This record gives sequence, structure tokens and C-alpha cells, in this order.
Amino acid sequence: MQLSIIKIGGNIIDDEAKLAAFLDVFSAVKGKKILVHGGGKLATKVAEGLGIRQQMVDGRRITDAETLRVVTMVYAGTINKNIVAQLQARHCDAMGLSGADGNAILAHKRVHAMTDFGYVGDVDSVNTSLLTSLLLLDKTLVFSPITHDGKGQLLNTNADTIAQELARGLSTTFDISLVYSFEKSGVLLDADNDATVINRIGPVYYQELKDKKLIFAGMIPKLDNAFAALRSGVGKVIIGRAEELPQLLAGQAGTTIVHE
Amino acid sequence: MQLSIIKIGGNIIDDEAKLAAFLDVFSAVKGKKILVHGGGKLATKVAEGLGIRQQMVDGRRITDAETLRVVTMVYAGTINKNIVAQLQARHCDAMGLSGADGNAILAHKRVHAMTDFGYVGDVDSVNTSLLTSLLLLDKTLVFSPITHDGKGQLLNTNADTIAQELARGLSTTFDISLVYSFEKSGVLLDADNDATVINRIGPVYYQELKDKKLIFAGMIPKLDNAFAALRSGVGKVIIGRAEELPQLLAGQAGTTIVHE
Repeated sequence: MQLSIIKIGGNIIDDEAKLAAFLDVFSAVKGKKILVHGGGKLATKVAEGLGIRQQMVDGRRITDAETLRVVTMVYAGTINKNIVAQLQARHCDAMGLSGADGNAILAHKRVHAMTDFGYVGDVDSVNTSLLTSLLLLDKTLVFSPITHDGKGQLLNTNADTIAQELARGLSTTFDISLVYSFEKSGVLLDADNDATVINRIGPVYYQELKDKKLIFAGMIPKLDNAFAALRSGVGKVIIGRAEELPQLLAGQAGTTIVHE
Repeated sequence: MQLSIIKIGGNIIDDEAKLAAFLDVFSAVKGKKILVHGGGKLATKVAEGLGIRQQMVDGRRITDAETLRVVTMVYAGTINKNIVAQLQARHCDAMGLSGADGNAILAHKRVHAMTDFGYVGDVDSVNTSLLTSLLLLDKTLVFSPITHDGKGQLLNTNADTIAQELARGLSTTFDISLVYSFEKSGVLLDADNDATVINRIGPVYYQELKDKKLIFAGMIPKLDNAFAALRSGVGKVIIGRAEELPQLLAGQAGTTIVHE
């Protein structure tokens, strides 16, 4: 059975018109689907409003207890429930979940030799039995990037990672297309020219592009993750603009990363 | 099949130790169960922190757009996900829901001749098919008092009403005990004396107490609602202290309101 897992980020969430346009195309996608959303600027705005200072280490936000409370509010509350209500209005039977709900995603607090990132969770397991049951009830699942450790602690988890772990976990049951939405048209040969999008890339071509230094350096971690997802059982990974979702899924836009 | 629906309010939610003690007894309750939580002081604190002025008309809070955003954050985000994570830690497989999730509770914006209460929702219908499926998957459902209108609008809905509408909707499938947690031991003959709790009350005894003006006036709306729930198919309604939940369900504490 086909399952589309689509991750959207702040560039969509922060823009009401873009989000509405995306939800129009998303709700029209046929078959089983999961939406994973990240945060966006609202969490920063709420934290500032409440006088919570954002701690940054090496350009990364530290999730202290107060920040965790804000991201739980904003991600699992405001953003998640608004997306769900807007999908329901589009006759898409959405159900919002955090990793704590039904023990959907179990994580542990990140251990790092040098830095305490605070309440940041690295994923341990995905409850595929629950998620399969909900998908078979024809629910479209909408995940906020909040997980839990099974001991009562909520954790802030990267939305890209959640999408990838869901895809990996569900790949034994479903034929998965994993879509990372991106502010560019796909993987570009020239980062400043959207017309240079690579339509299809497998490991051999990827190695060739890397060897010739033809690939934009910032794309390498994203592509490495995409190939890791493929190796873990995911059918295909697609990178491109959220607004072009139907074309991305049909292979007519964006970059499709394939086994070969 | 037996189903317990338990509503807790601010007196439990605002007190970390009381909430933990309640979740201990709640998680130990056997069988299918639903928890409905209200708000508490955190929403007011967050609204004040964000500089959102609370409008009150006749002692009732008006839910303007900004207030709706705050209650959605706090109720469906912070409070709901923390309760779910803490139940998971107690090996109770909880799943948090708003009325928008899976179209669980459909409502409409309240129409009132004199006052615009803002984004306040009165319940139209409960998705019993979804809720039955989730309960049969052995999930314990945790409802925040946020509903939607099916057109993309979230709405703030009274938690007592949500508990009652869930009980009414599910009463055709389940044998329901509906518990309203309360800061007193139950329905009291003397409002200042917890030892005067009425253990069991049916319509005839209730009429007798009202006629003799032996019942605390503040309890009359609660009891009228309880009898209305019974008439709509709910098996029994129980009023008492959340901490005594097992005793309440066993009829050994609180007030049980029965058909006769």
C-alpha cells in the first residue's frame, strides 16, 4: 500500500497564504498520507513575548524547560490544531499527534559530550502498530515535532528526523514516498538557478556529482540523509517545493532520490 | 462494555502534586476510559505574559481571536501533552485529542441575542465511530476543551459540556459512568460540612430536597445537568473529589446520581 509522508517547515507554516495553498494540494493527494510540520517563527515570538531568553550554542537553540513549554504550546497546540482544523475543512480527515500520543514516537534526551542541548529528543522507536491502525481507519496523521521519553518527559525533536523515522518504521508495511519540502525547486547544480534542478539522482550519479564538486555543499547533508532513508527501506525520497506536491509525487517536479 | 468518562478542572490541573496523585489513581482504573480536562490558571498567565487583555462580560470570559490562540496553545498543547506523557509513564496508553482531531467533536460558534462570546463553541455532534475505534484499540482518550466547526475554525468549549456530550454520544455503545470531579466530597446538604454528602440521589429524592430547600443552590445547575445526562442515556453520573476516583466509581464516596 502506498503512503506519502510529507514534511513542511517554517517557510510554509509562517505564511498563511502559502500554508492554505499547500493544504489545498495536500488534501487532494490520493491515498494514505502523513504530514510532519516543524516550528516556524511563532515559537520565537511567543518566547519573546513571555520574556524567555533563547539560549544558542554554536548556532543551535538550547531547549531549556521554559523553551520546551513554549514549543509544546506552539507546535503541538497552535500549529498542529490549526492545520488539523483546516484539513478537516477541506474534507481531509486529519488527526494531530505528538510522539507522546499513543506512544507514537519514543525518544531519549540527547547525550552529547560537549553540550547539553536540554530537552532535545533523539528517536528510539516508532509505534508502527498504532500508526498502521490509524492509517487503516483512513485518518491522515499530522505530526508535531514533539516526542516523549516514556518517563513523562516531553522532548523537542527535529521534524526532518521525525519524517525520516516514520518513513523508516512504516517501510515494512507501506510503499513510501518521503517528501521534504524545500524553499528551492529541488537539488540544484547551481544553487542560484532554479532551472538547474536535477530530476532524478541515484547513488552512482550522486558520487559522480560530489567527486566533480558539482553539487551545492549545503545539499550534501540532506542528500546523505535521503540515501540513508533509502537504505533503511524507504521507497523514494523527494525534495522540492511544497506548492508543487502533486508534481513532486508524480516525478514531474523536484528531485527524486532513488536506489538507482 | 463499561466506559468511565472523568472530567477534571483547574483545581487539579493547577496543582502539580494533586495532578500527579490523580493520574496515579486514574491510570489504575480498569477498563475503557476517557479523561476530559479544562483549563486552569496557566492560560490566564500566558495571556497576561503576552499582553492579551481578558475581556469579561457578566463574569464570563470572552474568547476573542487572541484568547482563542492562547487557550489552544495551553489546553491542546501544554496541558494535554503533559497529561498524555505522564499517563504514558504510568503505562496507561493515552492519546490526546481536540475536537478537530479526526473530527471528534463538531461544534458551532455560539449565537446569543445579547452578547458575542467570541470563539465559543456549542457542540453539535460527537464522532462515536472514531472514538469507539480508538477505545477498542485500548487507547485512553484525553480531551482538551477545544472543538472545531468543520470550516477551519477552532472553538473554545466548556469541558463539562464536552464530558456530557461524549457520554451522551457514546451511551448507545457503552455502559457509562460519568464523573465530574469537584473540590468538595460530593453533593452536600450543608455546603460547609463535607460530612453531609448525599451518597445517592434519584429524581424523586432530588425534587424532595429542592422543595424543602435542603440543597445548596449552587449545586442545582450541576444536578440538573446530571439528570439531563441520565435522561439522554448515560448510566450514572458521579460527583466528588478526583483523588477518590476509585471510591467514586465503586459508589463508596461522592454522590451518585441515578435514574432511581
